[in-house]
Amino acid sequence: MTHVGEEVSLVGWVQNSNDLGGMNFVNVRDRYGLTQLAFNMESNPDLCEQSRKLGREFVIQAKGKVAERSSKNKKNPTGEVEIIVSELTILKEAKLPPFTIEDETDGGDELRMQYRFLDLRRNPLKNNLILRHKMGLETRKFLSDQEFLEIETPYLIKSTPEGARDFVVPSRMNPGEFYALPQSPQTFKQLLMVSGYDRYFQIVKCFRDEDLRADRQPEFTQIDCEMAFVEQEDIIMTFEGLIKHLFKSLKGKEFAEQFPRMDYAECMERYGSDKPDIRFDMQFKNLNTLAQNKGFSIFDSAEVVLGIVAPGAATYSRKQLDALTDWVRRPQIGAQGLVYVKCNEDGSFKSSVDKFYSQEDLKAWADFAGANAGDLILVLSGGLDKTRKQMNELRLHMGTELGLRDPKVFKPLWVMDFPLLEFDEESGRYHAMHHPFTSPKKEDFELLNTEPGKVRANAYDLAINGVEVGGGSIRIHDSAIQSRMFDLLGFTKEEAQAQFGFLMNAFEYGAPPHGGLAFGFDRLCSLFGGQESIRDFIAFPKNNSGRDVMIDAPSPIDITQLTELSLNVDVKES
Amino acid sequence: MTHVGEEVSLVGWVQNSNDLGGMNFVNVRDRYGLTQLAFNMESNPDLCEQSRKLGREFVIQAKGKVAERSSKNKKNPTGEVEIIVSELTILKEAKLPPFTIEDETDGGDELRMQYRFLDLRRNPLKNNLILRHKMGLETRKFLSDQEFLEIETPYLIKSTPEGARDFVVPSRMNPGEFYALPQSPQTFKQLLMVSGYDRYFQIVKCFRDEDLRADRQPEFTQIDCEMAFVEQEDIIMTFEGLIKHLFKSLKGKEFAEQFPRMDYAECMERYGSDKPDIRFDMQFKNLNTLAQNKGFSIFDSAEVVLGIVAPGAATYSRKQLDALTDWVRRPQIGAQGLVYVKCNEDGSFKSSVDKFYSQEDLKAWADFAGANAGDLILVLSGGLDKTRKQMNELRLHMGTELGLRDPKVFKPLWVMDFPLLEFDEESGRYHAMHHPFTSPKKEDFELLNTEPGKVRANAYDLAINGVEVGGGSIRIHDSAIQSRMFDLLGFTKEEAQAQFGFLMNAFEYGAPPHGGLAFGFDRLCSLFGGQESIRDFIAFPKNNSGRDVMIDAPSPIDITQLTELSLNVDVKES
Repeated sequence: MTHVGEEVSLVGWVQNSNDLGGMNFVNVRDRYGLTQLAFNMESNPDLCEQSRKLGREFVIQAKGKVAERSSKNKKNPTGEVEIIVSELTILKEAKLPPFTIEDETDGGDELRMQYRFLDLRRNPLKNNLILRHKMGLETRKFLSDQEFLEIETPYLIKSTPEGARDFVVPSRMNPGEFYALPQSPQTFKQLLMVSGYDRYFQIVKCFRDEDLRADRQPEFTQIDCEMAFVEQEDIIMTFEGLIKHLFKSLKGKEFAEQFPRMDYAECMERYGSDKPDIRFDMQFKNLNTLAQNKGFSIFDSAEVVLGIVAPGAATYSRKQLDALTDWVRRPQIGAQGLVYVKCNEDGSFKSSVDKFYSQEDLKAWADFAGANAGDLILVLSGGLDKTRKQMNELRLHMGTELGLRDPKVFKPLWVMDFPLLEFDEESGRYHAMHHPFTSPKKEDFELLNTEPGKVRANAYDLAINGVEVGGGSIRIHDSAIQSRMFDLLGFTKEEAQAQFGFLMNAFEYGAPPHGGLAFGFDRLCSLFGGQESIRDFIAFPKNNSGRDVMIDAPSPIDITQLTELSLNVDVKES
Repeated sequence: MTHVGEEVSLVGWVQNSNDLGGMNFVNVRDRYGLTQLAFNMESNPDLCEQSRKLGREFVIQAKGKVAERSSKNKKNPTGEVEIIVSELTILKEAKLPPFTIEDETDGGDELRMQYRFLDLRRNPLKNNLILRHKMGLETRKFLSDQEFLEIETPYLIKSTPEGARDFVVPSRMNPGEFYALPQSPQTFKQLLMVSGYDRYFQIVKCFRDEDLRADRQPEFTQIDCEMAFVEQEDIIMTFEGLIKHLFKSLKGKEFAEQFPRMDYAECMERYGSDKPDIRFDMQFKNLNTLAQNKGFSIFDSAEVVLGIVAPGAATYSRKQLDALTDWVRRPQIGAQGLVYVKCNEDGSFKSSVDKFYSQEDLKAWADFAGANAGDLILVLSGGLDKTRKQMNELRLHMGTELGLRDPKVFKPLWVMDFPLLEFDEESGRYHAMHHPFTSPKKEDFELLNTEPGKVRANAYDLAINGVEVGGGSIRIHDSAIQSRMFDLLGFTKEEAQAQFGFLMNAFEYGAPPHGGLAFGFDRLCSLFGGQESIRDFIAFPKNNSGRDVMIDAPSPIDITQLTELSLNVDVKES
């Protein structure tokens, strides 16, 4: 398009028109950008009149000569030229779209979902899908270059009662029987390791019938990977390599250093989260020693008193502090209250608990927490787990408020040594934190018999900017440990066999040591795209009720279809 | 491994052992091949004894020094060297596999399916999966280089009563409603064209709940493609480019010329098939004029008398000819009988209908059919469609018998101008041969009103070696023609709206001219692999009853799962 004077032919959609009387300018949009068409009343009045009849989103073909624009648009790659049109064809007229096809549209969420095919014309969504395409391609190139094979695993598999709910698929040919859609290819990739495919990957759809939260989809995509004859370090370094490659090829960002690592236990202590956002500091400080036994009963009776330092926030007004207090008191956070200490520029301290603590006390807090003049200390107290969770939310909230979470800055962190088990109060037994095939750490084998809750697993997550983008583990391949695991998880031998028999059986025929991980592909795309929601990185997503409102799915099916499937629908009145 | 003298470490599975008393040799298999380990009773008796305890399929690690082999195995890439082992570790013992892990195994189909994870260790299957991986990667690279975007379309969509049966997925959150698994992303890729993504592709799983034939799978993979602002010629040349690229990069085969093309009508006339195998000639010759009205009532009463020339087959014995006759009379073929004419080397003719035809008559047949001395003419007669079908089968059978179908020779053919509609006797109306959005040829528009059955479509298939590897069409994007199509197909306006409303609605907002095609990925892999069955190009296929016998799916699900889905199973006694 830069070749002024060339004869060109262009097809696309009418973005908008600018009618100046003597001239009419029409912007045409295609996948590659916007181009201005120029029509002149003097030189070609018929064509100019014709161009005035073009409506928004008409599909047209224009032929003409490239010319330099008198008023150049530097923001647009083709903004320095225009086409002096000599021939115009309407390929297809268009109804007026129900919202504007602009970077910032006037369409609401519901309307945009219903007319997704129009929403997808907008640049932000187009750029998201192009990013997704590139990420898939670069992932495949990188892993293939590393001798990984992409192997497709089946979608019609077997339902297992463990974990989240399966979507099931009735089998017509086997009446009364059902397939399940995979929640992940976990067992199949482990079987492939048994089969000798020592480096496997797949970019694959997975399915979970969960009650949907704002940013969950019933179908989602994983980069699923597994390696044999490796240790945890090999896996981590291989996939750190993949992520670095993606950052370099898609964002032009180089990570010269190894990604930092932190133990799960330390993450919880410092950030109250297993996926801390380390773009900013504000680490938790335990104020128990300094704040307890000074007559403030709320702190005295608390299991833990935690503080964070919000840099430069001593200027917060009363109103802002009240708003913060209200924010932590909301049921989603559930704190009883919020204590603050302003570190004034003059070296004095102003606190909501001045009554109980002297200036010296508060100075000790500030010194311990590393707060400087101008900073604000925020303190929560209560039970350990609960307070950590609340403080994690408050920390992220403050990070956002203070502009410390730049979506263009990326801070990866490997979170290591996840607990193997978590105790479930309701069922009174241990559950596998990852899955029952996750390997405990060798040095914790003894604890399996004494304190199972303290056993750490060879399990790791990659968090970037507070988002869990992937995770995995080394798998058990020793049957004695596997058997002990099933005992701990409360399985009888028969139950273990019924549920995981085919995999355990396969392990009997020569299983290599193996492990792997999976990345959330939708999540990785949205992270790279600098957005929090995955929805606009999926071409045709479902809404929060799991519906595709554009095609109106799910929907009732024909009675003959049901009969063929040997099914009756039995909707209970509620 | 060629570096003699180097210290190496190797992991893998024990393939077999060769115990010579003073020495023990163990072959170890990994993904990359076989390596011989050498153990010597003199230099290391303990280790040698240890190696004698290794069973087949044990997972081991061996360390040692690479040495030149005294007896080299030229067939194996690592066959010229061996490893003098200094350290041996058993990583995992293995049960004896139920069949041998060799290129030619002693395991039956059923057993191999049940122990698929062991079958996948065999070289032929491993090579198939590596071929599949490479084909996927090369397809993606090629299409991406041509500005195609891979865009994922949803798996949980809406059931449509048209076409083959859908697999359905009950929605727990929307009781009584169902998703369907896609038979193809057809409507979504057309929506993407409306959205302006003018070059789309996807390697994607599709699902069809059909009664399975030997070589159909309920889930299969497509290379699905669509382009906007193009004509048929653009699509054909683009994807001919893809196929050529795959042949070159995966098979080292160059196709300098354009792929030949043939009209559907001509294919049917010459080969009785819309996917002729043109690796060999044996085209149909219409013998009506020459063979009728000579007193042979079977030919006289036939709509058509068709002959093919089997080169060099005049030597067929009486027994061979009887076997051929039996073959065409089997119910699968259904011919009444088979007439033959041997073109003897001495210029005479010997025929099963000598009684009715003179030597001159038979010479005329031979001249017309292009048969030479030594050839065998085979003749079938009857109704046109039926006889063509039978002759097609006979032709392929003879091609195979005469060794004319070399799996290493590849002959592509574009089959063009498929009929738009086919008349269904049962329902007394026309059905779309492809789908209701396929565009008729411009020059046949008039025929839509007069002789709809004669209207040709802008639809094309790619056949290679008698296998339909892909097909597609230009889609309708004019609403008047679309409306006429629905009339012809017997849709009321309301029905058309209910079934295809969302797509027709999208077309109202500016649809570009578009078209595309889809390749059967499993089929393309098996063709490149030189095999007729797709099953061993799929890691975990289903058997002919749609079962995965390894994991035992489908299977009954829990009553609580059914209740959550508002479903009752109602299996009728039969």
